[in-house]
Parts: sequence; structure tokens; C-alpha cells
Amino acid sequence: MKKEDKVLIIGAGLCGSLLALRMAQRGYKVEVYESRPDLRKVDISAGRSINLALSDRGLKALRLCGMEEKAREICIPMYGRLMHDTQGNTFASNYSGREGEYINSISRGDLNAILLDEAEKHKNVTIHFNSGCKKVDIENKVAHFKSYDTAEKFKVKADVIFGTDGAGSSLRKSYVSERKFLFSYSQNYLNHGYKELEIPADKNGNHQISKGHLHIWPRGDFMLIALPNMDGSFTVTLFLSYDEGEYNFNNLISEEKITAFFKKEFPDALALIPNIKEEFVNNPTGPLGTIKCSPWFYQNKTLLMGDSAHAIVPFYGQGMNASFEDVFVFDEILNQNLGDWNAVFKAYQKARKHDTDAIADLAIDNFYEMRDHVANPLFKEKRKIEMDLEKHFPNQYSSKYSLVTFNENIGYNEAMQRGRAQDKALLNLIADDKVHTNLEMTKNELAVILKKVEQQTKEILKEDKIAGL
Amino acid sequence: MKKEDKVLIIGAGLCGSLLALRMAQRGYKVEVYESRPDLRKVDISAGRSINLALSDRGLKALRLCGMEEKAREICIPMYGRLMHDTQGNTFASNYSGREGEYINSISRGDLNAILLDEAEKHKNVTIHFNSGCKKVDIENKVAHFKSYDTAEKFKVKADVIFGTDGAGSSLRKSYVSERKFLFSYSQNYLNHGYKELEIPADKNGNHQISKGHLHIWPRGDFMLIALPNMDGSFTVTLFLSYDEGEYNFNNLISEEKITAFFKKEFPDALALIPNIKEEFVNNPTGPLGTIKCSPWFYQNKTLLMGDSAHAIVPFYGQGMNASFEDVFVFDEILNQNLGDWNAVFKAYQKARKHDTDAIADLAIDNFYEMRDHVANPLFKEKRKIEMDLEKHFPNQYSSKYSLVTFNENIGYNEAMQRGRAQDKALLNLIADDKVHTNLEMTKNELAVILKKVEQQTKEILKEDKIAGL
Repeated sequence: MKKEDKVLIIGAGLCGSLLALRMAQRGYKVEVYESRPDLRKVDISAGRSINLALSDRGLKALRLCGMEEKAREICIPMYGRLMHDTQGNTFASNYSGREGEYINSISRGDLNAILLDEAEKHKNVTIHFNSGCKKVDIENKVAHFKSYDTAEKFKVKADVIFGTDGAGSSLRKSYVSERKFLFSYSQNYLNHGYKELEIPADKNGNHQISKGHLHIWPRGDFMLIALPNMDGSFTVTLFLSYDEGEYNFNNLISEEKITAFFKKEFPDALALIPNIKEEFVNNPTGPLGTIKCSPWFYQNKTLLMGDSAHAIVPFYGQGMNASFEDVFVFDEILNQNLGDWNAVFKAYQKARKHDTDAIADLAIDNFYEMRDHVANPLFKEKRKIEMDLEKHFPNQYSSKYSLVTFNENIGYNEAMQRGRAQDKALLNLIADDKVHTNLEMTKNELAVILKKVEQQTKEILKEDKIAGL
Repeated sequence: MKKEDKVLIIGAGLCGSLLALRMAQRGYKVEVYESRPDLRKVDISAGRSINLALSDRGLKALRLCGMEEKAREICIPMYGRLMHDTQGNTFASNYSGREGEYINSISRGDLNAILLDEAEKHKNVTIHFNSGCKKVDIENKVAHFKSYDTAEKFKVKADVIFGTDGAGSSLRKSYVSERKFLFSYSQNYLNHGYKELEIPADKNGNHQISKGHLHIWPRGDFMLIALPNMDGSFTVTLFLSYDEGEYNFNNLISEEKITAFFKKEFPDALALIPNIKEEFVNNPTGPLGTIKCSPWFYQNKTLLMGDSAHAIVPFYGQGMNASFEDVFVFDEILNQNLGDWNAVFKAYQKARKHDTDAIADLAIDNFYEMRDHVANPLFKEKRKIEMDLEKHFPNQYSSKYSLVTFNENIGYNEAMQRGRAQDKALLNLIADDKVHTNLEMTKNELAVILKKVEQQTKEILKEDKIAGL
């Protein structure tokens, strides 16, 4: 492991470009190969989510690389969810009761572009596009590519290879096919898929609905969401079962049925999506999968990072944030000067895996919570109390959502453990009528609730520990 | 779906041969293809566990097929664990406080043989050996085989195809490679592997240690177990990490080190294993993996059963029992006369998957329990109380182990939910000093404990339900 080591990064998406930048800043000789064309020159957004939620964990990693301010320039703050019912009525639910805690809608392409620009400013970085990785000879650290410009095949040898090539990772597939070690691996799909649609800007280029919110049309078995773009449009995503329920992706094939579905379930959204039929028919339906695997690395030779190591479903808005945080954690491990790549990879996986496993599980939890619980009175009351607690006791109480989203200094796993115990405590206190709420609670009344929640949370964590859970 | 349907079964192991028998009894035309030679003619045990634990769920399925009595003739009852410490001291721990609840050591080969014999008695069954399945064209229901006798390739078309071809299932691999549907799949390996050794019979053909027990040498990070065979020998299995700890499979490569390891950790076992060096070096080291997947079926064409659908680690002694129970549950679904194979497969997976997921998780739990908790005073006290409760309140109390092993009329998932809540209740009552135990408790004292455990278990299940867990 030397400063002059040649680092090969497969994939110049969000994780790969941030990793390239950071490794360049640390002085390594970095070569990046990306299968798609340069997104700064060609529009290649088809089929991928066009905007994403950037929050504190992602910002922490961008800050490390000096990119926070540039990213913030293209961010649209979203302060909470705005729920739409079938009558078109809306009600808002803030992400936090504290001031200054919000998430950001950001264009995947624009963010990727500023990271590529910044990485390319370093003369120890080269980025090659249209170069698809076909396989990796992990023993000899040789990656096999095909140029989509010339159709030629070529090989690249490096001192160390990083696979940031996303959920369909070629490096990860080589782990499976080369059979050099026992590789634990899982891919789990939800029964739901997703499809993107668009609410365009109005004639003046302005947003047609509140741009300060993430919009949700929750309908139990399915749901529509919308995130704002800088150009005044919204990217809308429909989450729907492939084959269950009255309406599903398999049976929504006629224009009549598609319109009938939206008219019945999302009339206010339908009014804002002029090209619904074309978009529904032409835009691809994407699967929603979770990928976990282990080990992420092979000896001192290769490492998976980002989605290639841990793809998650989008329901916590943490996919990009988790991948960026990978780079932050990896950088912390590099600071330990462990001396060889194998030790670095081992320490990195040990520090990181329990957290990426946790956010994968949290994201699945949130799928069910958004689908099933949003309209549940118990959950609604819990949410109201939590907002009040966060507002009046900003330094003492953080909801599970806040722990995950706004507390970048604790890991996802700790956020999950504490957050779940706290949710359980609060829900049971409400169900058992042990906390009583009213519309305008005084700080003293809230202090009593806070104490009960803290006590009960502690008890739950203790009991789980004794049971060995 | 007709009585005359030609049913192709890939794999004539334990699950495949029981399924063939049952489908033959129901009148289907059954063809079975097995990659290995006929184990009734050739010894092919190498590398596979030679004996297994047969318990009530497996017996229930054997009973359905009229095979219980024949199986019992080759069973050796094991009434509990006999723990061996490094000094050679032993202490027994019964599997149940009730009379007549025990598990059975049985030879995999002998059991498979009587099932094959019985299946072949039906003229609507043919079994072909040395026929390795290479892939399955699931759309056209055509399985591709290679004969290991003639090296010829051949195809078999059927009305419906069952894959009972084990953890490395060829049918399951075809689900992955044919990409006809979103296939959720996981393979998870423990860091431990296993190796089989032998304690031979004494000169008179008798067992050298108690044959009424499953012997365990628990050592925290690793463990040795032994199950009795009918010929007076024991099959011994070492569970050990591949690469962690002072001693592991990767570093136990010299005869000196192997002997030193056994001398230090298992001196009483070492004295009974005369060929330790040869066996350790020559016998393969096997991995310990869990496989889950979904869906198990493709349309009305193919279905995975047994290990091919849900391979589990051996620490609950339920692998074979779960596979046999598959056949029992499938038979119950057939009794519903659903009319077509697709409806049957769907109903079968819906009825069965949560239970096979549960036993997979329970088996992993038990790996950690056997490794880490066997020597924990809290767990020891729990176990003692549970034995007393089962003895004095045989109809009111069943431990998690009993629920899983001896209560074949409730599913694994329910056994897991109830068993885990009960364990948590009891461990916390002991830790909080809310139940007090002494060596000889009266029935009245135990009744008080039982009531507390029941109450606390109910409370735990209620709280989990409110929290949406």
C-alpha cells in the first residue's frame, strides 16, 4: 500500500465519482471507467430516478471533499411531507420539530456532474466513459472492459480495484463466478415496482405545487410521491405492485385503465401530469430490490462500495447518502494508516457493514410504514408527540427519522436500535393510555411524556439485551 | 392438473424420495432423476453428514406415507444433550421435561434407502440414477440431463417439474439464469465450516459413550458433537471457524497442530478417535450456509422443495424434518383440490414459506446459543426452570425447543414467535430477580413461576404487535 498505488475505480456514478475525488485528494493515481457516456454531454437519465434526497450524512461526505457548498447551490430544501388525499386535500408533516432540519431534493445528474468536474481538476485522475466492465480477474487485479465507442475489448491492471458499479455490479458478479471464497449474497425484491412521471413547470417556469415539500399520495397498497426540480418541474414516482390488487403494473396496459386509475386515486396529481398516457406507457417500470453481501473485499485486491455492496429501496431517502457515507468512513479508516489494503478493507467492512445492513432494513420498514401506517391513528398521534418533543426538547429528543436523517455522527445501526425501541415505547404508552395528549400541550406536560418515553425506551433496550437480541 | 399428469422429480435424496412416494400414492405418473449412483448399491456418503436427527415433524410426514414404523426400526433415541468439558466431566440436559419426548439419530443413507425401496414398489414410479440435471427450460418444462454412465445428454419433458435437488439445486439456478421473473434469493454462510470424524464401536460392536444422548463439547468459538449409529459407532462433527481464532480450519494443517488442538480442547473425544489425523486431513471441510428464495415456483410448471428452496444450518436438527414437513404440507394443499398446479404452488408457498424462513432463523439462533450461551448462568437457570415446568405442567408449558421439535401441529413460525417471547420473559424475570429458584422446587412454587412467565410472555407479544413488529 503505497501513495503511488494505481487505483482503478469501476463506475463513475455518485459513489464512484466522490471516491475518485477523495482518492485523488489523498494523492493516489486514480483511473475511473464508466460504462455509460459522459452525462455532462449526453442526457442518459432514462429509467433512473432523476432526483434524490440529499441529507446530513451525504452532506458530511461532500464536506470532507470540499463539495458541500457547490452541492447546496443545486439543492431544493424539503421541510416535510405534504400528504394528498383522494379529495385533493393536503396535510403537512414536518421531518423534524427542530429548526434547520430538512432534506434536499437534488438532481442526480447535476450532482454527478459537479463531482466529475471536481475530480477531473486533479491531474492524477483520468475518467474514461463508454467503457463497460465485463468481468474482473480478482486474483490478478485485472479488469476486462469493452469500449462502446470502438467495440474493442481491453484490459486494465491496477494495484487495487474498487467496484462502485451499482446494484448490477460487475465486480460483485465476478466474486460469484470466480468462486475464490464463500460469498454470502442476497437480492430481495419487493412485490412493488416503480415508474417515473413528470409534473412540468407552469408557463412562468414555476413549481405548480409547494416546492418546500416531498409530496406523498399514500393509498395503502400503492403510493405516488413527487420531488421538486430546479427547473420548476417535479419528478413523480408511482410505487405499485406488479401483480396484486385491482390495479397493478401488469394490468395497467390500456390508456383508459391508466387514466381511470389516476382519476380515481390521484385526481389532483393527474390534473398536473399532461403526458400521463405517453409517460406511463413509454417509461420503464423498475424493480425495487435490496442487495446485501459479504465479504465486500477480496484479500488486498478489490473492494465493493456503494450500491454494489448494499443496494437499498428508496423509502428512507438514504441510498445516495449511505453511498457517500461509505466514502467518509473509508477515508477515516485510511487515516488509521493500517499499512496494507487488506487491513484497510477488513477494518472498513467491520466499521461499516452493520450500518449498511441497518439502513437496508430501515428502508424496508419505511415502505410498510408509508403504505400501512401513515393513516393509522396510533402512528399519527406518535408523530404529533414527536414533533412537539423535538420542538420543545431539541437537545433531548430525536425521532427515529431524525436519528437516521439528521444525526450523521451516529451510525445507522445505532439509529435503528434506539429509534425502534423509542417507537415501541411511545406506541405502547399511547396504546395503554399512559400518555395523554391534547392539541396544545404545555412544556411541562411534554416533559412528563419525555421522561416516560426515555424510561420505557431504556427498559426495552435492557430487556432485549438480556434476551440476547 | 390431471391424475395422469407426468411428474418429474429432480433429485432422489430424502425429500425427493419421500415426495416421489407420496405422489405415487396419489396416483401420479412419477419419474425421478438423481445425479448420484444408487446409494443402495454404492457407498456415496463421503462429505455428507452420515446421520441426522429425526423428530416429530419428520415422523409426521413419514406417517402420512406409511413409513413411520420402518423408520423407527432404524432410529436410536437421544433423550438429551450430554455436555463434555475439557476435563472430561459430563453433564446431561434433557430435551424435554415430559416423558416420551426425544429425538432420534438415524442414518441418512439407510432412511433414504427404505424410502426409495417403498417408492419403487409403485409401478407408476421410475427412478433413474447417475443422471445429473444440467439445466431446466422452465418455460417448456424440459429438464436437460447428462448420464454419468454413458456421458450422453438427454432431455425429459413433463407436465410438472419438482426440484428436490438440494442446496445446489439446478432448477433454482435455472430460475436465476432464465430471468423470467424477479427472483429474490439469498445465500448466507457462517464463518464456521464443519468436518466429520468417527468414534468407532468397541471390540464387541458396542457404543463407547452413551448412545442415548447427543454429545456436545461446547467451547465457545467452536464445538464438537457426536450422534450414535446403529453399528456402535458415532459420527463426530467439528464446527470451527475457517479463519478466526487461535485454531481454525485454515491453520490446522499439520498433524502436530491437529493433535495438539484435540488434546487441549477435546481430550476425552481424542482418546476415542483412533484415526484422527487421517480423517482430519482426508475428510472434506463443508460450508454452513442458509439459502432462502422466492418465488419457489414458476407459473404452473415448476416447484422447488426441500433444501433447494430453503437450506438451513444444522444447529436445530431440523433440516431433514423441515424437508419432510414440506411434503406433508404440500399433500394438505393437494387435498384442497384447487384445480391447477399454479394455484397449488401459490397456496403451498403461502402456507409454507413463513415457516421455513422461521426455522432458518431459529437454526442460526441456536448456533450462537450453543456457542455462547450454553455456559451462561442465566441460560442455564432458564433451562433448569423450563425442564421443571415441562415436567410438572406437561400440558401447559413447552420450551422453544419443545415447540419447534415436539409440537408438529404448530408451524415453525408460531413456534419461533411464542418461543422467543417466552425466552425473553423468562430470562428477564430471572435477571430482575422476579423468579427465585432452588434445587428442589415444589409444584406450588413452580405454579407461581409459570403464571409470571405466561403473563410476561403475553405482554411481550402484545407490545410487539402494537409496535408493528
